[in-house]
Amino acid sequence: MKATIERATLLKSLGHVQSVVERRNTIPILSNVLIEATADGAIKLMATDLDLQIVEIIQAQVETAGATTISAHTLFDIARKLPEGSQVSLQAAEGKMLIQAGRAKFNLSTLPRDDFPVIAEGDLPTSFELPAETLKQIIDKTRFAISTEETRYYLNGIFLHVSDDPQPVLKAAATDGHRLARVTVARPDGAEGMPDIIVPRKCIGELRKLLDEVDGSVAVSLSAGKIRFGIGNAILTSKLIDGTFPDYSRVIPTGNDKLLKIDPRGFEEGVDRVATIATEKTRAVKMSVDRDKITLSVTSPENGTAAEEVSADYVSEGMEIGFNARYLLDILGQIDGDVVELHLADAAAPTLIRENDKSAALYVLMPMRV
Amino acid sequence: MKATIERATLLKSLGHVQSVVERRNTIPILSNVLIEATADGAIKLMATDLDLQIVEIIQAQVETAGATTISAHTLFDIARKLPEGSQVSLQAAEGKMLIQAGRAKFNLSTLPRDDFPVIAEGDLPTSFELPAETLKQIIDKTRFAISTEETRYYLNGIFLHVSDDPQPVLKAAATDGHRLARVTVARPDGAEGMPDIIVPRKCIGELRKLLDEVDGSVAVSLSAGKIRFGIGNAILTSKLIDGTFPDYSRVIPTGNDKLLKIDPRGFEEGVDRVATIATEKTRAVKMSVDRDKITLSVTSPENGTAAEEVSADYVSEGMEIGFNARYLLDILGQIDGDVVELHLADAAAPTLIRENDKSAALYVLMPMRV
Repeated sequence: MKATIERATLLKSLGHVQSVVERRNTIPILSNVLIEATADGAIKLMATDLDLQIVEIIQAQVETAGATTISAHTLFDIARKLPEGSQVSLQAAEGKMLIQAGRAKFNLSTLPRDDFPVIAEGDLPTSFELPAETLKQIIDKTRFAISTEETRYYLNGIFLHVSDDPQPVLKAAATDGHRLARVTVARPDGAEGMPDIIVPRKCIGELRKLLDEVDGSVAVSLSAGKIRFGIGNAILTSKLIDGTFPDYSRVIPTGNDKLLKIDPRGFEEGVDRVATIATEKTRAVKMSVDRDKITLSVTSPENGTAAEEVSADYVSEGMEIGFNARYLLDILGQIDGDVVELHLADAAAPTLIRENDKSAALYVLMPMRV
Repeated sequence: MKATIERATLLKSLGHVQSVVERRNTIPILSNVLIEATADGAIKLMATDLDLQIVEIIQAQVETAGATTISAHTLFDIARKLPEGSQVSLQAAEGKMLIQAGRAKFNLSTLPRDDFPVIAEGDLPTSFELPAETLKQIIDKTRFAISTEETRYYLNGIFLHVSDDPQPVLKAAATDGHRLARVTVARPDGAEGMPDIIVPRKCIGELRKLLDEVDGSVAVSLSAGKIRFGIGNAILTSKLIDGTFPDYSRVIPTGNDKLLKIDPRGFEEGVDRVATIATEKTRAVKMSVDRDKITLSVTSPENGTAAEEVSADYVSEGMEIGFNARYLLDILGQIDGDVVELHLADAAAPTLIRENDKSAALYVLMPMRV
C-alpha cells in the first residue's frame, strides 16, 4: 500500500482508534491498528480489544491499495509529534511500514492484516436512530452509577430496554446496588421489540468521547449479543454483557410521601463543604430535615464536626437521614434546573431524587446509617 | 484566639503553607498548621516537615490574640470550598477550633501550639538580596538535573557557591552524574565569603512556587547549616544538605573543539519525534554530525527505525554520538534563543551545551553508547 494523508485528519482518527487499544496485550496484534487503503481514495483504520471494535474511514490520496497493521499507540504518538499541516506518506511492504513527513522518516514493524481479529457482527435485526444529544444525556445521567465490581459483571454497563409505560419508551438504567440512575426517552422508530441489553462500560466511554465531536443523529443497530453505533465517520461495535440485569423497577420507591424541594446548587455546595471532614471510607453526611430547611452535618472521630443549613421547601414531619456524600454529589451534578425534589420515606428507605415529575432522569439513593 | 479573615487571603496563604506539610506523618502535629493571631491585627500561619518551614503573615481582624494548631490539609480544603467573598471566623478554645463562614460551621480538633516544632535558625551570617527573576532563572535552568537517587543525598539539591572567576560570581549547579547544569550570576552584595551550600530539592520546589507570585527582590540569609528566603509575606527556612558536593568543575570540558550550532526548536522537535520509538529504558538517540546538518536516529528492536535530518552550522570532521533523548530535551527546553551551541569532542566524551559564550547557563551532557 502507498497513501498520503493530511496529518490533522490522521491524528484525529488515530485519537479515536488508539483509545480502544489496551496498553498491555498478551496477543501482540491487539496492540495494532489495521490500516487499509482502498482504490477509491479512502483509508480505513480499525482497532479492537476483542470485545469492542472501532472502524473509522478517512479521505486520503491512495497510490497503491493495500492493508497492514502497525502499533496503534506508536503511530498515534508519531502523528501527534509531526509538524502541523504536514502531509504524511504511508508506504507498506515486506513486513515494514515507511512513514514520512517533512524531514522525518520512520520505518516500523508491521503484522499481517490477515491475522487481525474482526468482531463478527452477525445479524443486527433492531435498527434505529437517536439524536446525538439524547444519547449524550442518557450516558451522562446514568454512567456514574455503573458498578465497578467485576464480580457483578451484569452491573458493569448501562441496561437498555423498551417498554410501553404506557407510552412507548426506551429506558436506560445503571446501578451499583447503592444508587440507581434511570433515563427514559421516547422510543425511537425501529426500537420496538428490541431485546433487553447491557452495554459495557468501555463501549459507553468510547461512545461518549465520539459523541463530543458529532451533531445530528447516531445510527444504532443491535441484536441480543452485539451493538453497533454509527457516529460520523466512526463505527463502534461492541459485544454486549451476557447476563441478566436485575429487575430494578422494584427498588424505585412509589410511596415516599415526604417531599423536599431544594436549590440543587446550594445543596451541592453544602454537602461538598461538610463532607470535607468526612471519613474517606464512608463519606457519610447526615441530613436533618425540618420545616423549610435542612441541616447537613458530619461527625468525624479524627477531625471533629461540620454543619451547614440550607433553606428548602418542606412541610412534612421532621426526619434525619444519612447519605454517602459522593453518591449524592454525583446525582446533584446531573441536575440542571433550579430545583431538585427529594422524595423521602424514612431513615432506612431508598430516597427518590429527580428534577420534577416531567424529567427524563430519575435517581434512587440508598441511605446510610449515620 | 478569635479572628476574622477574608476567605481569599486565607486560601492563598494556606495554599503556600499546606504544600510544605507532608501527606503522611508519623508525628501528628506535623500534619498541622500553627495559627497565631496577634493583637496588632495579623495572623501568622506556620507549617514544617522538620527540615523545611514556612511562615506567612496575613492581615486579619483579631478580637482575641492566641494560637493553636489544626490540620493543614483539612483547613485548606475547607477554605477552598467556602463561598467566594466570605469572611471566615476562626475561634479557638479548649482543644477545638470553630470555623464559621456563611451558614457553614466546622468544629475541629486542635493540638497545643507549644508542641509545634520550630526550626531554630541560629545565626545566619550571610545576607543578600536577589531579584526574584534571577532566582527563578537559577532554579529553572538547574533543577531538572538534580539527582533523585536518595543514596547520593549530596546530589539531591542545588549547590550554591561564590567564586572570583575572575569577576565575583555566584554559581548554582546541579547534577545527577549523567548531566550537569550550572548557572552563573553576578555575586550579590553581601554574598562574599558565604559557605558552599546545598539547598534541598523540596525547598527549591516550594521556593519556586512562591516566586511565581512576587516581583522585586528576595532576601536570602544563610549559614553553613540553614537558609532563609523572604519572599513577599512568606519566610521559607530550610536545613541544608549536610554533605560535600563533588568538584563539578572538573567535568566541564574545556578542549571540545568541534562546534555545532543549531536552531534549538528544530533540534528539540527532531529529537522528540525520533525518540517516539526509542526503548523506554534507555531513550537513546543517535546524532550523526556532518557538514551543515545532523541526522537524528533511533533503532529499536521492538519498533523499527526512525530518522530525521536537521540543518546545522558545522564545519569540523563528521562524527556520531548518542544521547539520552530526555536529558537532551530537558536542556533544550531551557534554551530561549535562536541558536544553541554544542561543543563536541568524540563519541565517548562529555558534550558542552550552551546558548553562547555569554550565557549565564551552561550544560554538560554525558554521551551514551548507541
